[in-house]
Amino acid sequence: MSNEQVRMTLGEVRDYARATLTRVGLAPAHVEAVAETIVAGERDGCGAHGLYRLLVAAHSVATGVVVPDAVPVLEQRASGVVRVDGKGGFAQLAFETGRDALVAAARANGIAALAINNVVHFAALWPEIEALVERGLVALAVTPNHAWVAPAGGTQPVFGTNPIAFGWPREGAAPFVFDFATSAVARGEIELHRRAGKPVPDDWGHAPDGSDTTDAAAVLAGAMRTFGGHKGSALALMVELLAGPLIGDMTSAESIAWDAGRKGSPLGGELIIALDPAGFLGDAAAEQMARAETVFAAIEGQGARVSGSRRHALRPVSEREGVVVSRALLRDIDDVTKEKA
Amino acid sequence: MSNEQVRMTLGEVRDYARATLTRVGLAPAHVEAVAETIVAGERDGCGAHGLYRLLVAAHSVATGVVVPDAVPVLEQRASGVVRVDGKGGFAQLAFETGRDALVAAARANGIAALAINNVVHFAALWPEIEALVERGLVALAVTPNHAWVAPAGGTQPVFGTNPIAFGWPREGAAPFVFDFATSAVARGEIELHRRAGKPVPDDWGHAPDGSDTTDAAAVLAGAMRTFGGHKGSALALMVELLAGPLIGDMTSAESIAWDAGRKGSPLGGELIIALDPAGFLGDAAAEQMARAETVFAAIEGQGARVSGSRRHALRPVSEREGVVVSRALLRDIDDVTKEKA
Repeated sequence: MSNEQVRMTLGEVRDYARATLTRVGLAPAHVEAVAETIVAGERDGCGAHGLYRLLVAAHSVATGVVVPDAVPVLEQRASGVVRVDGKGGFAQLAFETGRDALVAAARANGIAALAINNVVHFAALWPEIEALVERGLVALAVTPNHAWVAPAGGTQPVFGTNPIAFGWPREGAAPFVFDFATSAVARGEIELHRRAGKPVPDDWGHAPDGSDTTDAAAVLAGAMRTFGGHKGSALALMVELLAGPLIGDMTSAESIAWDAGRKGSPLGGELIIALDPAGFLGDAAAEQMARAETVFAAIEGQGARVSGSRRHALRPVSEREGVVVSRALLRDIDDVTKEKA
Repeated sequence: MSNEQVRMTLGEVRDYARATLTRVGLAPAHVEAVAETIVAGERDGCGAHGLYRLLVAAHSVATGVVVPDAVPVLEQRASGVVRVDGKGGFAQLAFETGRDALVAAARANGIAALAINNVVHFAALWPEIEALVERGLVALAVTPNHAWVAPAGGTQPVFGTNPIAFGWPREGAAPFVFDFATSAVARGEIELHRRAGKPVPDDWGHAPDGSDTTDAAAVLAGAMRTFGGHKGSALALMVELLAGPLIGDMTSAESIAWDAGRKGSPLGGELIIALDPAGFLGDAAAEQMARAETVFAAIEGQGARVSGSRRHALRPVSEREGVVVSRALLRDIDDVTKEKA
């Protein structure tokens, strides 16, 4: 740890996040929900979803992209479909508003969906997946964002980075949880190359005129590629439809048009599907779910990794020893949020 | 069309498939269901899922891999979960047995699942997806098969080629339907390279000792790779769990162990999730689903392709002009199935 770094307990991270979010004008219920996501990011070693996000949140409030005191409204649309209208606030509180109804619907029917509408996204999907997995459910979540990614065979942006997240509960072990963009790389990765003046590999994206390029700025102005060629592109389109038109919410193209150059976080919807093992397996649920362990053992036994395990391994370390944070980041956050206060 | 090819109407394909399947000993209800899948394959230009599959079906019957007269049993496990026990028969009839109950459950709850257990897989998932999309539902299907594919970061087989299929209904246009393996390539593609004595690219798979190889036979004996690196690998694991332990059915490792070297089609389960737009959107369903057309237009307007469009474009041509079939294939089928008669 250098002089430019400081060690904070998770409690200190929480207090700092809450104080900052309160100072920028977020209503108390949003402060609580967003701060927990930030603590989870720092705790699990995902700096991009930790305290750094306070800058993003402050910007979203300052530019009017987010409604800071939105009160989400819950509605049961069908016995298996829960809807929460986030009223333009951050997604975290909307998810918390719908979570228990989703869990109840999944337990009653075996499978259920939560459609979250009209929310500002600014963090990963895995905290929401984990909240369901902790309750013994299998869960899948998708969301579009801003149109930055071209379909396979094209060069112009249509899709967002459209992440897919999935979680599977494990008895006595960290759950299997993945959460990845269907773009070839994270947009932030290209941004880091641009800031460092480094070229990007030629398969990350296209220049605005559609040509191949290794210029990070050209990719940011043009279009990113999907991962995995036409398969990744098909998945990106699936995400776009499931958490856009199917739930009556914005496509990635509509989200970026609505943003109108404010460089704010994406606005739109999110679809979460929860499956209750007991609804499929009845009394045999515990025994059958345990059979999945043979698959995990076959993966880990050859030295390969089960997604989510690295984050979970860090968790007790962070809880015991705290996390290391850049002093420069804290200064930036203090500067930006004091300006806005 | 050479002398080695013959043009058949779709009616002739159907009659030929039915006669052959009857001759090898399949019960009438299975003959009907399997023949329709074969007609759909030929009609849509997917030769690998057309008449060629009669050889596979005959082999599965002859080796005792499939129960030729299995009577699938339907059970409503929860209000949103339909289960069909295929009793060891081909998957097609099991799907047909559960289809209407799945559609009804999706319409009643907004979302529902069909767990198909204990069936022999030998065709693509898209015919099942299309049967749901034709009824106005959005559908997702997954199935494991035989353990042939290594996880990212490993070199030993754990997953099957574990396909994911998805469908989205479009008013007045061919539906968006994809159906792809989460392996880097289809196993049949590697088999074709082996037969032709051609090397495969070095990122298709691993030799049995875990080394990289361009030898197709070594990949077939060793392990294939997933598509899209760790992301594709995470999806393959998701498929393995959803249509394996979650529905109380075989993993890909269990399926290949059960096969015991017979080189039969995989036995196991399939999970299909159906979502009813009306359950999410109520009266606004038609209007909101139509908004998806802006996404399709943005893709097709730049010359990129929406999955499924090529198959659908071929359909009226095949219905009008019939399809071209290899005489050698028909001779092979006749030879093999006469032996078994």
